[in-house]
Amino acid sequence: MSYDLWYWPSIQGRGEFVRLALEAAEIAYTDRAREDGAEALLDDMDARTGIKPYAPPYLVDGDLCIAQTAHILSWLGAKHGFCGADERETLGLIQLQLVVTDIVAEAHDTHHPVATGDYYDEQKDEAKRAAKGFRDERMPKYFDHFESALSASTGPFVTGASWSHVDTSLFQLVRGLQYAFPRRMAALLPDYPKLAACADAVEALPGIRAYLDRDRRIAFNEDGIFRHYPELDEA
Amino acid sequence: MSYDLWYWPSIQGRGEFVRLALEAAEIAYTDRAREDGAEALLDDMDARTGIKPYAPPYLVDGDLCIAQTAHILSWLGAKHGFCGADERETLGLIQLQLVVTDIVAEAHDTHHPVATGDYYDEQKDEAKRAAKGFRDERMPKYFDHFESALSASTGPFVTGASWSHVDTSLFQLVRGLQYAFPRRMAALLPDYPKLAACADAVEALPGIRAYLDRDRRIAFNEDGIFRHYPELDEA
Repeated sequence: MSYDLWYWPSIQGRGEFVRLALEAAEIAYTDRAREDGAEALLDDMDARTGIKPYAPPYLVDGDLCIAQTAHILSWLGAKHGFCGADERETLGLIQLQLVVTDIVAEAHDTHHPVATGDYYDEQKDEAKRAAKGFRDERMPKYFDHFESALSASTGPFVTGASWSHVDTSLFQLVRGLQYAFPRRMAALLPDYPKLAACADAVEALPGIRAYLDRDRRIAFNEDGIFRHYPELDEA
Repeated sequence: MSYDLWYWPSIQGRGEFVRLALEAAEIAYTDRAREDGAEALLDDMDARTGIKPYAPPYLVDGDLCIAQTAHILSWLGAKHGFCGADERETLGLIQLQLVVTDIVAEAHDTHHPVATGDYYDEQKDEAKRAAKGFRDERMPKYFDHFESALSASTGPFVTGASWSHVDTSLFQLVRGLQYAFPRRMAALLPDYPKLAACADAVEALPGIRAYLDRDRRIAFNEDGIFRHYPELDEA
């Protein structure tokens, strides 16, 4: 059995959260648009019927087609055993994954605050203001939340010694924010040792190590969610 | 058994999506902060441990505490039988509920595009630009998606004759957008007859009828997600 993952082939974007969980769990998958191109992705989306994906990423398993990043991850976690040990943990992890979804959307909106369809250059002034609020207020508020969840665990992961889909997403969030806001993260992350340790522990997982070593991971770039615009970053 | 729902007592907000599903299913619940006040909500949030709610709404069922609107609705749907008939439907409905989450966040951001923490008056010009993109591009794109999902069904609901948590959310989305953007919705909604019919069918459910007749529903207002600022609305 092998899954088909459909996502834009030239960015990490939201698809990377799915890739990381698949890689950490060492689950076989084909990253379809990286094999067949972005046109194939558009054609595949077009041809779907019923409740279709609104946007990539989506995962195909035979007749099943699942979209929305947090939803894909919860489903994969339940099927492959990285979703927590009991109902309470499983529900808590889905909840936390949806909080990651929220901060990821806000990180995106720092460079596209007023018009998703327009270029960054057309909303630079607004982006500066949005990024300031994100850096000063939103990042610490979200980090407090993640640190608190991690503090209730024996570590290094949210549910203890075993990683879940939330940990791989926290890794991606931390690395993405370090790319986009290096000065702010250098100042902020030391206050969140458990979050930093969780990201490091994910990076040390054999599946993730192999993924990074094989050089399969697309580099962060200025077409994705986490973009490095120096004018938006401040300690 | 009765649930405790915790949400801000003076707005519909995201809590209304949960209220509507509970009302449609005629499930007993206590709207705690409407009984005990907003201070009680803050105190309750503060006292929680482990994976806590990041923000209201959250639902408490004995020892379980579940936050994030789409997550609460999926959980309630699975427990009370309004989540679809089989795995494919259940997964499709969760996916669609998360698309509703996305458009609701974008609707909110029309009046708060650059700074969630600041007042609308401090970002009126940016809001005009954001609202234009939302009205002209985002609303039709999302509506196309919902109409397409409804078109794959025998109607009036997404999965046919039985309502699910997605239908009550689509009702709230349509009514909220009609409140916030009356001119735009008057021009746009006729192109989406299935979406309009779904909203009407939800409104005719006995539980929803009783909820509206009892005058329990908080009125839309300019502290919530869907706000009527005439300067942001255009056909």
